[in-house]
Amino acid sequence: MELLQSKIEKDGVVISEDILNVDGIIHHMVDPALMEAVGEDIAAHFADRGITKVVTVESSGISPAIMAAKSLKVPMVILKKEPSKILHADLIQTMVTSYTKEMSYELTLAHRFIQPEDHVLIVDDFLSNGETATAAIRLLRHCHATIAGVAVLIEKTFQPGREKLEDSGVEVYALTRIKKLTGDQILFEKD
Amino acid sequence: MELLQSKIEKDGVVISEDILNVDGIIHHMVDPALMEAVGEDIAAHFADRGITKVVTVESSGISPAIMAAKSLKVPMVILKKEPSKILHADLIQTMVTSYTKEMSYELTLAHRFIQPEDHVLIVDDFLSNGETATAAIRLLRHCHATIAGVAVLIEKTFQPGREKLEDSGVEVYALTRIKKLTGDQILFEKD
Repeated sequence: MELLQSKIEKDGVVISEDILNVDGIIHHMVDPALMEAVGEDIAAHFADRGITKVVTVESSGISPAIMAAKSLKVPMVILKKEPSKILHADLIQTMVTSYTKEMSYELTLAHRFIQPEDHVLIVDDFLSNGETATAAIRLLRHCHATIAGVAVLIEKTFQPGREKLEDSGVEVYALTRIKKLTGDQILFEKD
Repeated sequence: MELLQSKIEKDGVVISEDILNVDGIIHHMVDPALMEAVGEDIAAHFADRGITKVVTVESSGISPAIMAAKSLKVPMVILKKEPSKILHADLIQTMVTSYTKEMSYELTLAHRFIQPEDHVLIVDDFLSNGETATAAIRLLRHCHATIAGVAVLIEKTFQPGREKLEDSGVEVYALTRIKKLTGDQILFEKD
């Protein structure tokens, strides 16, 4: 997506060869018009697939996810990051270890918000190693929902997230694809 | 706001006389059309005030805030909840203690996203004791920005949040106002 890529070229900050700071785009300051365009792009890609819910992970995924949900005219469900096991009959959890952030948490879903007949589109900010997306898929499949695909704003193609997801039969749609972070340069894949 | 109040009457769950669970409305599953209407209502109330940014706190405030920012055609800035002090020249932090959730965190803002000439509308889900809103105001005033007001989806009028904010000269706009939580009943203030 041209608009998002030029914004990343302008405001993205390379922290290391693994980490891109997008505070001014997604994480800390957000342009709602850009997010609306992002949501429309995602919705257009997944139109006519019978999607019943958009699922995201707090908190950076919420802005693009609610815009995608608005375009698809379906509810958004936010998976919560909880520090530790919560004992509650309705909650299901799965451990996620983020290598990028060097931390673990319990991705949490209240069972009642996902039904077996749901066909779910997962929307998130980054796809790197795919830990978050695969954890989300575990929770959703535990509820017997089916997965329409994973849409991300930024894919790091030098990390194995896409391969992992596609190997498990899940379609990946990335609005921008970065092949290398080097010095202060962001190199995108050519279409 | 009629639409939001009827949704709360239908899906809100009284946990105790202090706590209302709105997982099915704001926190866990979100109706984007409702949030868009909420955003438009907030934007209409604060129209023509010269607002330059909408500020919210992760993660429950993001959905209504991005819709309000979209209607006002301004960026949204997300204040982050960090567990502990981060040492970074550009970050400012202030401690928040939430009595409702019995936890403390450092509300965090990257200085570069708020300028002295900014006139800021704060959007959040709940107004209870006003800890989060007053902490947000501290951070924003530290950046020499001015505050247009605080808009919340749900005000608990039996707690002193509004009084605290109004005493410090900040306008409060609440879309729904709850005067009492009792048994399984939610009693709203009459307009």
